[in-house]
Amino acid sequence: MLAVRGRAIVMSSIESHRSVESLALRYDGRSVSVLDQSRLPQEKIWLDASAPAHLAQYIRELKVRGAPMIGVSAVICLANYALGGATESEFLTAAADLRKSRPTAVNLMNNIDQLLSYKSKTSANAYSPEHLIKTALEIFREDVELCGRIARHGASLVKMHDGILTHCNTGGLATAGVGTAFGVIREADRMGLKVHVYVDETRPLLQGGRLTSWELGELNIPYTLICDNMAAILMRQGRVQKIFVGCDRIARNGDFANKVGTYGLAVLARHHKVPFYVAGPHTTVDLNCASGAAIPIEERGALEVRGAHGAFGSVEWAPSNAQVFNPSFDVTPAELVTGWVLDSGVFTRAEDLLMAIENKTTIKNS
Amino acid sequence: MLAVRGRAIVMSSIESHRSVESLALRYDGRSVSVLDQSRLPQEKIWLDASAPAHLAQYIRELKVRGAPMIGVSAVICLANYALGGATESEFLTAAADLRKSRPTAVNLMNNIDQLLSYKSKTSANAYSPEHLIKTALEIFREDVELCGRIARHGASLVKMHDGILTHCNTGGLATAGVGTAFGVIREADRMGLKVHVYVDETRPLLQGGRLTSWELGELNIPYTLICDNMAAILMRQGRVQKIFVGCDRIARNGDFANKVGTYGLAVLARHHKVPFYVAGPHTTVDLNCASGAAIPIEERGALEVRGAHGAFGSVEWAPSNAQVFNPSFDVTPAELVTGWVLDSGVFTRAEDLLMAIENKTTIKNS
Repeated sequence: MLAVRGRAIVMSSIESHRSVESLALRYDGRSVSVLDQSRLPQEKIWLDASAPAHLAQYIRELKVRGAPMIGVSAVICLANYALGGATESEFLTAAADLRKSRPTAVNLMNNIDQLLSYKSKTSANAYSPEHLIKTALEIFREDVELCGRIARHGASLVKMHDGILTHCNTGGLATAGVGTAFGVIREADRMGLKVHVYVDETRPLLQGGRLTSWELGELNIPYTLICDNMAAILMRQGRVQKIFVGCDRIARNGDFANKVGTYGLAVLARHHKVPFYVAGPHTTVDLNCASGAAIPIEERGALEVRGAHGAFGSVEWAPSNAQVFNPSFDVTPAELVTGWVLDSGVFTRAEDLLMAIENKTTIKNS
Repeated sequence: MLAVRGRAIVMSSIESHRSVESLALRYDGRSVSVLDQSRLPQEKIWLDASAPAHLAQYIRELKVRGAPMIGVSAVICLANYALGGATESEFLTAAADLRKSRPTAVNLMNNIDQLLSYKSKTSANAYSPEHLIKTALEIFREDVELCGRIARHGASLVKMHDGILTHCNTGGLATAGVGTAFGVIREADRMGLKVHVYVDETRPLLQGGRLTSWELGELNIPYTLICDNMAAILMRQGRVQKIFVGCDRIARNGDFANKVGTYGLAVLARHHKVPFYVAGPHTTVDLNCASGAAIPIEERGALEVRGAHGAFGSVEWAPSNAQVFNPSFDVTPAELVTGWVLDSGVFTRAEDLLMAIENKTTIKNS
């Protein structure tokens, strides 16, 4: 924060007004930087992501990750690209390329659509870099606010001394704000509820073991790291009172896609009668997606399952010719969800969630 | 095999008669060698385990692992120690020490008890190294036979083209024979049932990723390696027709302890209506253990969860001060078990299993 403030002194007032910063994204009005999340917690390396092609590559390499963070960084990068002199044609090509970098993340699609809304029939706007950067920064600031609201709604469900299990990373690294599921935990801790967090390591890419552990440690929130296959015994021992997870996409019927392993947790939660909550901004709801069956599931490379690779080193323990199955995500059906925690509130029925989203959309468009 | 046969030429006929060999244990009548399973599949290193203190250390370090293998190697080591000139007092001290090396494995206790049965009131035998080695080799050969019977009983449950999920390693490395759950798969493959195996990598020590994958590859049985948290999506996709796992201890009521992650699989299997079988020799049933609640669960060190360590290298991805939970085993309650696959047959009710074991015990003791 200090560094950015320092630099702001030599910026024009417009640039200063334009600068935004989160735990993993910085924009100073001229260039976009992202924290290389693949190297945390061992190294903190900021990458220049001013070129859309570079950002797309970082997203594919999971250097930039977390559904909201992907969407927010994409629109800031695109708007800044326009501001730097890209023609409308170049801008639209870059937007189309970035859209493909992470097919599961609906925020990315929604945020890019919002940026491109000037092209809709009803819009009075033409291609205007100034307008684009204004929209992109609004999206950033809206994400910060959405996170805050999700955190407060979710924390209202938490009781004193709850053990909370979470999966993957959904915190300040994954969003522009305090996070989604992670933000709930952070808010509950801030409220003095003395929660204890159980962190799934989240194989194969270890976002829990590397990132969530690190963020919790930085915030001095007590946690216990586990291997993914230990969640069941924890629940059986009665040490988990609630599960909060994030989501990459919520379908109209309440099914949602999230990091692989989420669905298994939902089944375990049902068996052990542990409330299972999914947290995300309303932008994660995809009104064009009827159910989880319509959500495409990326499969990633075999090396990730045959070993572990990152800034911490690179090891391969399996036979080098081992066939693997490596889906990035799985889909949790609505019937296993106790509640959807959105910025607009907590919904315990998918119908109510859908109604709230549709009303909001209607109001916005009218 | 050839190497052992070659050496046998210069052995006395007694020593030759005494030599036994399995995938991970060799005894030539004078010294005991064990394959260092912590270094597979990268390196095949045989360790001298003639000294009981060394074997106990290897068991604690998981260089020797698999409940049947631990028990068999312990009694061969102890008997050979007696044969080498240990006094009865030294022998009994060594037996007591080895017994403590793996508290969850009932085979270890049972096999050592069998070796020490000469001390019972009804026995006419005194301390006799010759008698001890005879007993130990009988235990080895009995394990080979038990594995064969388990494999045949289990394979009778398998249908053409079944997808079979398994956890940890229960094969030729873990037993003196073809294995337990693994032996079932091997027998089904031998029968031409064209099964496909899904192998849980089995964090934190990766026995599935390292050992089961390797054994399946050596036998040319088709398999797919997965991270533990991917089992649920596989079941939802209908790709798993049966689950076979091994066990470290079965209680009187049918509850059983096995590698951590087994219990979660059983819950997932129930939810997806996938038959869930546990395979093991009758020696794994602990008649002194009323239920799973009485089985002690070892907790292991934090480093295993903070990273991955082995012959493949050593990496630590989590913050170095991360608190962890690292139980070696979990307990699966009998109500989640579709069938217990023993050398004496397949039991679908815990009462029948208990009756069969008690009758066998009675016959043996009478």
